Amino acid sequence: MVERLMRSQADSHHPDLGTALNHLLSSGGKRIRPGVVLLTGGMLDGDRELLVILSAAIELLHTATLVHDDLIDGAFLRRGIATLNSQWSPAATVLTGDFVFAKAAVLAAHTNDVKLMSMFSETLAIIVNGEITQLFSSHGVANRENYFQRIYAKTASLFELSTTTAAMISKVDERSTENARAFGHGIGMAFQIVDDVLDFTGQMITVGKPVASDLRQGLITLPALYYLDDKPDDPVIGLMRNGLTPASSDIEQLVAAIRSSGAIEKSMQDARNYVHKALRSLSALPAGEYRDSLEALAFYIVDREL
Amino acid sequence: MVERLMRSQADSHHPDLGTALNHLLSSGGKRIRPGVVLLTGGMLDGDRELLVILSAAIELLHTATLVHDDLIDGAFLRRGIATLNSQWSPAATVLTGDFVFAKAAVLAAHTNDVKLMSMFSETLAIIVNGEITQLFSSHGVANRENYFQRIYAKTASLFELSTTTAAMISKVDERSTENARAFGHGIGMAFQIVDDVLDFTGQMITVGKPVASDLRQGLITLPALYYLDDKPDDPVIGLMRNGLTPASSDIEQLVAAIRSSGAIEKSMQDARNYVHKALRSLSALPAGEYRDSLEALAFYIVDREL
Repeated sequence: MVERLMRSQADSHHPDLGTALNHLLSSGGKRIRPGVVLLTGGMLDGDRELLVILSAAIELLHTATLVHDDLIDGAFLRRGIATLNSQWSPAATVLTGDFVFAKAAVLAAHTNDVKLMSMFSETLAIIVNGEITQLFSSHGVANRENYFQRIYAKTASLFELSTTTAAMISKVDERSTENARAFGHGIGMAFQIVDDVLDFTGQMITVGKPVASDLRQGLITLPALYYLDDKPDDPVIGLMRNGLTPASSDIEQLVAAIRSSGAIEKSMQDARNYVHKALRSLSALPAGEYRDSLEALAFYIVDREL
Repeated sequence: MVERLMRSQADSHHPDLGTALNHLLSSGGKRIRPGVVLLTGGMLDGDRELLVILSAAIELLHTATLVHDDLIDGAFLRRGIATLNSQWSPAATVLTGDFVFAKAAVLAAHTNDVKLMSMFSETLAIIVNGEITQLFSSHGVANRENYFQRIYAKTASLFELSTTTAAMISKVDERSTENARAFGHGIGMAFQIVDDVLDFTGQMITVGKPVASDLRQGLITLPALYYLDDKPDDPVIGLMRNGLTPASSDIEQLVAAIRSSGAIEKSMQDARNYVHKALRSLSALPAGEYRDSLEALAFYIVDREL
C-alpha cells in the first residue's frame, strides 16, 4: 500500500514526472523508514490507513533529499543504479526533487495532524541545514561532537520523526511518545554510523558505491576520527583538512591503515551503544504485536552486510 | 511584521543561510502576495496574527521557487540585483531553496489549519509541475490554451492560494471562500499576462532584465501568440519551434514587429478582462475596511510600469 501510494503521486501530472518517480522508487531502497513507521505505529495500535500515508510521506521526503544530494555530489550511482542527475539535466533534477518534496508534504497534511505537519517541515529544515553546514565546512576541523551533530541532521532526525509521528498518530501518552522518539533517534544514529563504517569495510558490489567514497570527497567520518586519536598528525588527512585532494594511492593506504587500526571496532561499539539505548526506550513502550520485529530491525541495523 | 517573521527563519541555523535569506529578501520584491493576503484577510476580518504567518509562508514559498528558477535559467539578475546562483555554487543554491521551502511549510503549519497546509503543498506541486511541463516542451507547439494553463501554474495558482487561504483563516462561508479564490485567480492571471507584455514593452532599467528575455529563451508568450494569428508562418518563431536559436538581430526585428502589431493591445485586453472578472468576485464578498485597497491593487496590476 505504501509503494502504491508513493507511485500514484505523479498521477495527473506531467508523464515524465511519473517516469522519474518510478525510476527513483524502483532503484531498490530498503524502505527501512516506512518499516519503522509501520512497526512502531502497529505496535502502538495506530490507525493503519494513517500509518500508510505517513510512511509514504516520510519515504518521499527521504527520496527528495536524495535526488538533490546526488545532483550536488554529481553522483552517478546510488545502490548500483543510475541516479536521476546522471540521465537528466540539472534543471529537471532540481524540479523533480521539488515535486517530490511537495507531494511528501501533501501526504503529511493528509494525516490531519497539524503538529505532525509542523515537525515534518522542521525535520526537512534540519536535514538541509545539516547539508549546508557540511558544504561550508567540509574541509574544516572535524571532531566527534560535530560528527554526531552531522549524522543527527543527516539521518537520525528522519528516523526520530518516523517513530515520533507514528506514536502521535497512535495517540499514546507523552511519555510513550518520548520513548518512541528516543528509539528512533538511537536506531537512526546507529544506522548512519554503520553506513559510515561500511564505506570503509564494504565491497563496492554490496555498498553500491566506491570504497571510501566519503574520504575521497574530503568527508571525515567516525572511523577516520578514531584513527586520528592515535595518529593526530596523519599527513593524508592533514592535506584533506587544508582542502587539498590527496593522491588516490595515498587514500588507499590510509583506508588500509584505518581498517587495520581499532577505529572500525570503536565505531561499531558506538553504533551498538546507540542500539542498546534504543532498545531500552523500546522496552519502556507499551508491548504490542510488532515489538519483536522492531527489536530485530534494530539488530539488523548494526549487523547488515558486515 | 511579515518581513521580520520571514527574516527570522534562518535564526539558529548556519549563519550563511541567514546571509542568503537576507540577500534574497533584500532584493526588492514588491511583496504583492503578502499584500493580497493581508488585505483579503483584513477585509474578511481574519485573525491578524495568523494572516501575518500566512503571508510570510506564501512569500517564502514564492522566494524558494525563484531561487531554483534562477539557478535553472542561469539568470544573473533578478529585479536588477545579483541572483544567489550568480554568487554561490549550484549546491549551495539548491540547498538554500530547499531550506526556504522547508521554512515556508513550517510557517504554513503554524496557521494550525490542516486543509490550508494541504492546499499549500498542492500549490507547490502545481507550480513545479508547470515548470517541468515548460522544460520538457519549451520548443513545442504553443497555443493560447496551454499558455493560460502555464501561467495558471506559474503565477495564478499562488495568488489563488493567497486569497483562498486568507478567506479560510477568516472563517467565512464557502461561497465567500469561492469568491475569494476567483478574485485571486483573476488578478494572478492578469499579473502574469502583464509581466509577459512588459517583457516586450518594458525598459531593461524598470523590468530588471533584458527586453524580450522570454523570447530569447525560446518561450512563446501571449503577445507572440496573438502575433502568430496574423503571421502564422513567421520564420523566426518557426526556427524557435524547431528548437533552434535565431540570430539576435532577427529576434530584435520580431520584437519590433510584435510591438507594432495589435498583439500587445489584445494581450492587455485579456489582462483587463481577468481583472474585471476578479473585481466582480470581489464585489460579491462581504464589504470590509480594505475592499478599496484590493480594488486599487487589482488596477495597479494592469497599470504598473506601462
